[in-house]
Amino acid sequence: MISLQHVNPRVRGIRVSSHSELQSLAARITQVALKPCQKVIDVSSGDLQQAGMKPVSFLRQVLAVCLHPELLKDKDLPLDVRLRAQRFLEVCDGGSLGSYTASSGMEYIRRRIAEFITRRDAGVPSNAKDVFISSGSQRALMVAVKLISTVEGDIRSGVLTPMPCPHTLPALLDEAGVTLEPYELIEEQGWAIDLDKLHEALKDARGRCNPRAIYISNPGNPTGHVQDRHSIEEVIQFAAAERLLLLVDEVNQDSVFGPGREFISYKRVLFEMGEEFSQTVEMVSFYCLSTACCGECGLRTGYMEMINIDPQVKFFVDTCLCIDICAPVVGQLALDVMIDPPTPGDPSYDTYTQEILLTRATLSQNAQRAQEFLNDLPGMRCEPAMGGIYLYPRLDLPSEIVREAEISEVEADVLYCQRLLKEEGVLVGAGSQNGQTTDKHHLRLCFNVPSDSLEDVLTRLGSFHLRLLDALPHSHRGVEDMDTRGKYKKDIKPLV
Amino acid sequence: MISLQHVNPRVRGIRVSSHSELQSLAARITQVALKPCQKVIDVSSGDLQQAGMKPVSFLRQVLAVCLHPELLKDKDLPLDVRLRAQRFLEVCDGGSLGSYTASSGMEYIRRRIAEFITRRDAGVPSNAKDVFISSGSQRALMVAVKLISTVEGDIRSGVLTPMPCPHTLPALLDEAGVTLEPYELIEEQGWAIDLDKLHEALKDARGRCNPRAIYISNPGNPTGHVQDRHSIEEVIQFAAAERLLLLVDEVNQDSVFGPGREFISYKRVLFEMGEEFSQTVEMVSFYCLSTACCGECGLRTGYMEMINIDPQVKFFVDTCLCIDICAPVVGQLALDVMIDPPTPGDPSYDTYTQEILLTRATLSQNAQRAQEFLNDLPGMRCEPAMGGIYLYPRLDLPSEIVREAEISEVEADVLYCQRLLKEEGVLVGAGSQNGQTTDKHHLRLCFNVPSDSLEDVLTRLGSFHLRLLDALPHSHRGVEDMDTRGKYKKDIKPLV
Repeated sequence: MISLQHVNPRVRGIRVSSHSELQSLAARITQVALKPCQKVIDVSSGDLQQAGMKPVSFLRQVLAVCLHPELLKDKDLPLDVRLRAQRFLEVCDGGSLGSYTASSGMEYIRRRIAEFITRRDAGVPSNAKDVFISSGSQRALMVAVKLISTVEGDIRSGVLTPMPCPHTLPALLDEAGVTLEPYELIEEQGWAIDLDKLHEALKDARGRCNPRAIYISNPGNPTGHVQDRHSIEEVIQFAAAERLLLLVDEVNQDSVFGPGREFISYKRVLFEMGEEFSQTVEMVSFYCLSTACCGECGLRTGYMEMINIDPQVKFFVDTCLCIDICAPVVGQLALDVMIDPPTPGDPSYDTYTQEILLTRATLSQNAQRAQEFLNDLPGMRCEPAMGGIYLYPRLDLPSEIVREAEISEVEADVLYCQRLLKEEGVLVGAGSQNGQTTDKHHLRLCFNVPSDSLEDVLTRLGSFHLRLLDALPHSHRGVEDMDTRGKYKKDIKPLV
Repeated sequence: MISLQHVNPRVRGIRVSSHSELQSLAARITQVALKPCQKVIDVSSGDLQQAGMKPVSFLRQVLAVCLHPELLKDKDLPLDVRLRAQRFLEVCDGGSLGSYTASSGMEYIRRRIAEFITRRDAGVPSNAKDVFISSGSQRALMVAVKLISTVEGDIRSGVLTPMPCPHTLPALLDEAGVTLEPYELIEEQGWAIDLDKLHEALKDARGRCNPRAIYISNPGNPTGHVQDRHSIEEVIQFAAAERLLLLVDEVNQDSVFGPGREFISYKRVLFEMGEEFSQTVEMVSFYCLSTACCGECGLRTGYMEMINIDPQVKFFVDTCLCIDICAPVVGQLALDVMIDPPTPGDPSYDTYTQEILLTRATLSQNAQRAQEFLNDLPGMRCEPAMGGIYLYPRLDLPSEIVREAEISEVEADVLYCQRLLKEEGVLVGAGSQNGQTTDKHHLRLCFNVPSDSLEDVLTRLGSFHLRLLDALPHSHRGVEDMDTRGKYKKDIKPLV
């Protein structure tokens, strides 16, 4: 029997994020409909197509042909679509994507991914044997973290985790039985990684757990920070010196738009640091279909590349992935299209390029537009994003709200999000979902949405925010804390 | 660092099946090609489309349209295809299957599944809240087993498991940290479940673990046994009396062809046994796309229905499924098509019916043909299958093979499979992969393949088998053990 008290304590210990509660609330609100003209807009997670972003036509066409091969004869579909689909069907067992694949993915796609990585990293070699395809990057991360999860006496394995971190990460670590050991990112420096903070966190962690790995998100989820080569080198040197496994979320590698910034992979930097590092530092890098420019979240497929990992350990990766058989074949094939899209001369090249350019333009324009808008609101300040898909503005909440949240036993930022959702039908994420437990409050806002949706979100958010502040007794608003434009001065703490 | 000795001991403890080794061998053989005219035929697992079975056209057409909605305008596609696709796109967030869904699946599909279950079970009600969609039935089972996995002192949770069991099950229980407690099925009765064996197994288990659940496979994987109502009632009464959670693999519910047999769900029987049972017995039933008639293994989607489970416990199911976000949307939609195919009057009805009738005819004819062929081989005896997709013949191996296997430190049935694969390019499963550790040897052979492939498999298998026996010194073959047709007498043990 599985009465509540007999449920696996580790499962009972998985922290419950307010994210899903807010999503349920959003679903209920959608059903009853706020105002006839309004629909709920969800910018709390990177669910891009839900938010109205369009899929890549070439990718969808290829998959449609693979599912219904009669379409190979359809002359209305571009030739490169049909050729790619034909190639895919040839490499699927039984000529069908209804067949199982090896647990780590189709050999052909693993090779193609390794070729992509080699191209991306200016020739740093990648081996198909190091590539493991899974049902999304979360599933790959589950396996990687499970490998290092041990208990010695009362001491569990720990993972140094950025604060803020992706909102999906804390529960994943709980489920694997691994301790989340926070390291602070530096908000004032655009959420950069600071070496002193890493050392500090490691020192703190050592008393409580056995630190085995460090998690990095670059481009940063939810911060939008993009590391430069120097910063990456510092982290690698730290991991090398402390013998930590590097878990690198590089899912948003296709979204870097900050002036003078480019995506450099951890692997490339590692290999360009010389053999002292390239032969020794253990690293796992994650990528998937749910990226800024591909956005195929619903297809549920990703991969990890495991570098410098003992082949005997990789054997266990296969063993773990084997338990739920393999990743969806539709998604495995989609990975191939994502990493090797049409090139000049291909019939689909022009359409593809137009679609991608539109997405990229949306990304950078929206990021700037939203950041400026948020910074103009009193009690809000927002670092610019250099990449990724989120802005992560700080919210200086009036003391009334904080007190009300305490009474309701809810995080103050969650209370803010609930109200925003109920009053304006806009769902943004609360910083407390990103692991932050300090008295600093933040919001998480995905800007990779159509520009008109973003305008709608900003209008509703702004209107709600100003209404909230106006409703408070002026004596409590601390006029002395405001500058001449009625904004809170940046260096003043809210009245808590 | 993840040096081998620091890998999570539970992961290191996952038993390694010879199945994947044999599959790797098959892949290598495919690459070097045995004989120019031959290709490797894999009948070791229920990978139906790999083996040449055709997908359901209606299902594939609907999914193709969903992926590439331009096809909604394609008049060459049947109207019911386009209408179903249109409905699906309406219920997908953002009108796209590239969006995430709730972690337990799309509300719409869960409701549709509940309706299907109610129809199937002659009106026994099903509630969408009890239906959890996952990336395949294995993933659902992982979650259900994880819920009951606890350790008290040295005592772990145990699951009563049929012998033989599905070849994917032992590793799954290992990974969840749960003890596999075997109960024997009665081969001579067509692999029926025997109540005495259940009591015996439970008694044995009580010393070693905390028995929390009983796993049932009906129709049986790999046995082909189909339980009748009386047998199901017995199992339910046993589970009720012993307060065990019923984990019922009903994945092959669409494949029952034994004379006078029909599929009756555990849930239906439970509810028809009266409130004493229907209100109390905890049950989880699994179903998925990888069935005999649908066979969409590569789409990786299934569901479980949880009956009489505390809502607070179901909350944790959601929590666990949330960790890797949600099941693939393509597969979620495919579930809808599988459970509600075209009906009379629909444009696709005739095609659908022809396809399904062909599959059903193949199933029953192949099962009979293969069983008769195998029973005609010396040293082989095979119970008839009443359903499912496998035959599970017993192999009375000559003592030379058993001794050679001992020396090579490999299971004797695995050695047999290796040789068959190398010499004839036919991959069958070994009974030891199905959890059987006795000195009785078995093979696992999926008969849900095109009839000509089956003939090819049988010819190669027969030829190999007879060659193997002929190559042995006659004095060792035990002529006294053979009947007049040169077959081993059924009641004689092999020379071990």
